[in-house]
Amino acid sequence: MSAFLEKNRAVLLAYDQGLEHGPTDFNERNFDPEFIMRLAVEGKFNGIIFQKGLAEKYYDGRVPLILKVNGRTNLSKGEPVARQNCTVKHAAELGAKAVGYTIYPGSAYENIMLEEFGRIQEEAHRLNMAAIAWVYPRGEVIKNDLTPEIIAYAARVGLEAGADAVKIKYPGNVDAFKWAVKCAGKAKVFMSGGPKTQTEAEFLKQVRGALDAGATGLAVGRNVWQSSDPLQMARALRALVIDDRSLEQAVRV
Amino acid sequence: MSAFLEKNRAVLLAYDQGLEHGPTDFNERNFDPEFIMRLAVEGKFNGIIFQKGLAEKYYDGRVPLILKVNGRTNLSKGEPVARQNCTVKHAAELGAKAVGYTIYPGSAYENIMLEEFGRIQEEAHRLNMAAIAWVYPRGEVIKNDLTPEIIAYAARVGLEAGADAVKIKYPGNVDAFKWAVKCAGKAKVFMSGGPKTQTEAEFLKQVRGALDAGATGLAVGRNVWQSSDPLQMARALRALVIDDRSLEQAVRV
Amino acid sequence: MSAFLEKNRAVLLAYDQGLEHGPTDFNERNFDPEFIMRLAVEGKFNGIIFQKGLAEKYYDGRVPLILKVNGRTNLSKGEPVARQNCTVKHAAELGAKAVGYTIYPGSAYENIMLEEFGRIQEEAHRLNMAAIAWVYPRGEVIKNDLTPEIIAYAARVGLEAGADAVKIKYPGNVDAFKWAVKCAGKAKVFMSGGPKTQTEAEFLKQVRGALDAGATGLAVGRNVWQSSDPLQMARALRALVIDDRSLEQAVRV
Amino acid sequence: MSAFLEKNRAVLLAYDQGLEHGPTDFNERNFDPEFIMRLAVEGKFNGIIFQKGLAEKYYDGRVPLILKVNGRTNLSKGEPVARQNCTVKHAAELGAKAVGYTIYPGSAYENIMLEEFGRIQEEAHRLNMAAIAWVYPRGEVIKNDLTPEIIAYAARVGLEAGADAVKIKYPGNVDAFKWAVKCAGKAKVFMSGGPKTQTEAEFLKQVRGALDAGATGLAVGRNVWQSSDPLQMARALRALVIDDRSLEQAVRV
Amino acid sequence: MSAFLEKNRAVLLAYDQGLEHGPTDFNERNFDPEFIMRLAVEGKFNGIIFQKGLAEKYYDGRVPLILKVNGRTNLSKGEPVARQNCTVKHAAELGAKAVGYTIYPGSAYENIMLEEFGRIQEEAHRLNMAAIAWVYPRGEVIKNDLTPEIIAYAARVGLEAGADAVKIKYPGNVDAFKWAVKCAGKAKVFMSGGPKTQTEAEFLKQVRGALDAGATGLAVGRNVWQSSDPLQMARALRALVIDDRSLEQAVRV
Repeated sequence: MSAFLEKNRAVLLAYDQGLEHGPTDFNERNFDPEFIMRLAVEGKFNGIIFQKGLAEKYYDGRVPLILKVNGRTNLSKGEPVARQNCTVKHAAELGAKAVGYTIYPGSAYENIMLEEFGRIQEEAHRLNMAAIAWVYPRGEVIKNDLTPEIIAYAARVGLEAGADAVKIKYPGNVDAFKWAVKCAGKAKVFMSGGPKTQTEAEFLKQVRGALDAGATGLAVGRNVWQSSDPLQMARALRALVIDDRSLEQAVRV
Repeated sequence: MSAFLEKNRAVLLAYDQGLEHGPTDFNERNFDPEFIMRLAVEGKFNGIIFQKGLAEKYYDGRVPLILKVNGRTNLSKGEPVARQNCTVKHAAELGAKAVGYTIYPGSAYENIMLEEFGRIQEEAHRLNMAAIAWVYPRGEVIKNDLTPEIIAYAARVGLEAGADAVKIKYPGNVDAFKWAVKCAGKAKVFMSGGPKTQTEAEFLKQVRGALDAGATGLAVGRNVWQSSDPLQMARALRALVIDDRSLEQAVRV
Repeated sequence: MSAFLEKNRAVLLAYDQGLEHGPTDFNERNFDPEFIMRLAVEGKFNGIIFQKGLAEKYYDGRVPLILKVNGRTNLSKGEPVARQNCTVKHAAELGAKAVGYTIYPGSAYENIMLEEFGRIQEEAHRLNMAAIAWVYPRGEVIKNDLTPEIIAYAARVGLEAGADAVKIKYPGNVDAFKWAVKCAGKAKVFMSGGPKTQTEAEFLKQVRGALDAGATGLAVGRNVWQSSDPLQMARALRALVIDDRSLEQAVRV
Repeated sequence: MSAFLEKNRAVLLAYDQGLEHGPTDFNERNFDPEFIMRLAVEGKFNGIIFQKGLAEKYYDGRVPLILKVNGRTNLSKGEPVARQNCTVKHAAELGAKAVGYTIYPGSAYENIMLEEFGRIQEEAHRLNMAAIAWVYPRGEVIKNDLTPEIIAYAARVGLEAGADAVKIKYPGNVDAFKWAVKCAGKAKVFMSGGPKTQTEAEFLKQVRGALDAGATGLAVGRNVWQSSDPLQMARALRALVIDDRSLEQAVRV
Repeated sequence: MSAFLEKNRAVLLAYDQGLEHGPTDFNERNFDPEFIMRLAVEGKFNGIIFQKGLAEKYYDGRVPLILKVNGRTNLSKGEPVARQNCTVKHAAELGAKAVGYTIYPGSAYENIMLEEFGRIQEEAHRLNMAAIAWVYPRGEVIKNDLTPEIIAYAARVGLEAGADAVKIKYPGNVDAFKWAVKCAGKAKVFMSGGPKTQTEAEFLKQVRGALDAGATGLAVGRNVWQSSDPLQMARALRALVIDDRSLEQAVRV
């Protein structure tokens, strides 16, 4: 994970929403991976997250790459499952320093994803890449995926499965996230940026909470590139995450 | 994709309907792949799309070949899925410059097709072939596959999955298609010809709209070989697509 | 396919009914594969169709062998599927000149069979064997598998999938079969013998119809070895198929 | 199969019930594989049938080994399926002269077992081992698995699938079994011992019937090792099977 | 299994609950794998059970390692299944002396786990590692998984499948467990610690019962690391298991 760390922290720019949610997340500017690539550089992000198609056509090497090697659309209902769509070898050829993979614990297909991640993680380590798990409990059984128990469970699944870092949702308060971070042990924890919050302060407060809880940083997409001033948001996030500033200081950046 | 491009545009002749729809699409002339092969040459198409069986028995090398490596009949209902029925290596041996593969986002089996396309795309690139994705959102959840959102999502799935080009349906107006083309980024966009329109002018208008929206061209089957004068239709399409003529000029060709 | 052709025609002796239907098809004589092997020789059939078990224990090399490499019992209901039960390499070792494989278009598992046949066909060609597809549309959706549309679709599926020859049912009249033969293109067409007809003349009439429609011949089992005089029936079939005699002449043989 | 034959007959000692039925089949003596191994030797059985775990820990080489390479518990309902749990190579390393595999024709998963048996059979032959099929029609569709038609079908499935020998149930009368034996052709037929009969004479009568019908012998477990005097039963069976004695003579042994 | 045995007995420290049950099993101390690793050393456990993620980040080699190579969360309902998430080779690289694998007999997916365990067991033995089966009958059909019949069946499944040792639940009384131990034959039996009992004496009594029944020892997690004095509990367990003390003596340790 060292490729992504700055003062042991990291702000990662997520841009796999085109596959996961479709272009309804996009506007006339942020639909363009070139805009995002530039934003990653100018916003001094510590990593950028692409699906293979974007990495092949837009990645320019100026920011460390996390290649997401599975994904699904939100068009299909039923129990969620996403399978590997890019070999680890190809991720390495594209210059990735890490692979990302989503696991949906609670899905009827959980076993397929735990199996596949297990294989991918071993291959990634052999090629000196980190393996990052997106862990989102989901499926018919999960009524609320933001309870402290569920978030902590997600964190732990990542640790047990061998992830170098785990990306999980913020459960709304510092204490719950603190427990999740503890349960993740030596696996680094990244807060999942999630949908755009009503105000930017609201989002920054979540991030500050995650850091106070022990997170290594966050992987953020919509709250940056849907912002009216993405670079300003990037600066505020760096102030919080890398320079460990207070919420007040970050808001003022 | 350069093998197929003429002035950065292309008109591709699609002929995988025998598997996808069955001979109800055919008449006494166009059932014959030899007729289609000849039409591709005489109509100066930039590429021809065959399933392996047709390529093995009828392809003569005079027009660049796109080998469709999956397909299904329309006899089975349920969630759609089509798996690889031709190896990439065999496609190369048959002289193909590209492989084509259909993905049905929204199907309960979407994950199988995303996985399979991912593997096929890497193999194709290793053998210097392009990978073209037919992306048709379909399945129990998709009520209308022609909304601007669905078409744009289809385009984006192709880009994210690593397609060099994506074949999608025309949503009925230029603006919606323009958004889809944007969302496809550096993946080239081909309009899917679709079923024969009532008048030829109606079809040409769609094509003109697709081009105005930024499409590279189209892949067309029924609107050419079900036409009473396929070569005439081919000329009109070349006028529009390759020579970038207006609808009026094309109709007059 | 040349190994099986005599004046570009062929009468193939099918004997995979033991697996497909069970011994209810058999009597005290025809249950015995030795009887069938001898019948193939004495009846001058152009090919014999065995599952691997019969080929291993009874095939004596005196008639070209088509090894059927998938099959199912009729004991299981539900959507039909049959998977490969014999490697292509083993078929070659057994002396087969062709492999046979059943595809059930319309089945929920159609995609599995199209995928498997695709792989088998390539392997067979690499080993200089032909690939023959039994194509029987079946499944919950198919209400009548003898309509001209369904039969023509079956023929076309075989062609598109890369079959050297396709075995399909006779739809009851020459014109419908003619269309199917056309749709099969350069894939040779064999009429499927089907269950024993009430009179032998009735069966011979179907065969004559199939030939008039352009078929290469037929693959026949029950109408020969359930006949009271199988060799006599074999002679009549050869008269029709190989010597292209009229129905009247054949009946008189 | 020659490793198991004595005067072209064989009495095989089956002991895979621990997996198939669980210890409810066992008493304080026969739960112990050592007891069974000893019984196989002292009872002069022509073969012993073990799952891999028993072969690894108890097999001593004094009786030819048939390694059962699939199996299931009777705890799960639904359509029956059992997959390969031991490689053919490992079976050979354990000293097996044959592998055994259960096929459930009529199950919704029949195709998986036919495919798997096909592969296993080829591997076994390459390693000079026989392949024996346990064929038990079962599944929602099969109402009565002891009709003459079903038993004959089972026998034939084994032959067609390439089994060197087939293990099937006894349908209750000689004539029905005779037909089954005929349908099995050159595949040897072993009667399945089945659950313990009320009297030993009843069981011996079934065995005599099977032999009169043409069976090579039987694979018997419970009717031997649940007997109050297993060695005595073994002697009676050898008298019937190997020495071809009458029922009366065997009862008197 | 010799790596784990002390006077032919063993107390194994289980810590795969983070994946199986989630952090609800944990408190502020035992959530930490370092605490558990230290406890394993100081408590003189004969083995420690980790998922790959914990072994990679926390295992220090001072206690023999059992690597659990499958696992599932308790978030998903439906028929239970857990697939291999760590290669046997990787387990060996991590220093494991054994691999652990859970089989759920009675599950609709039982056949997948029996197949997978079969393969894993062979690989483990080739790399000189033991294969330990967690056998837990479960699924819609199993109403009570603690009956003597079910426990004995579980033990036997482990033996038949080739496990060197089997981990099963304690059925509540010595006689029932004695039968299970007998049915496990030469496969060693470990009692599954299970959820924390009301009093420590209650748990120790179960362990004593298991030993009296012939068990080799136990694999215990919650009853140790949820204890207010884990080292004290470890001492009591060693007294019972390794030194074969009476319940009274162990309670007094």
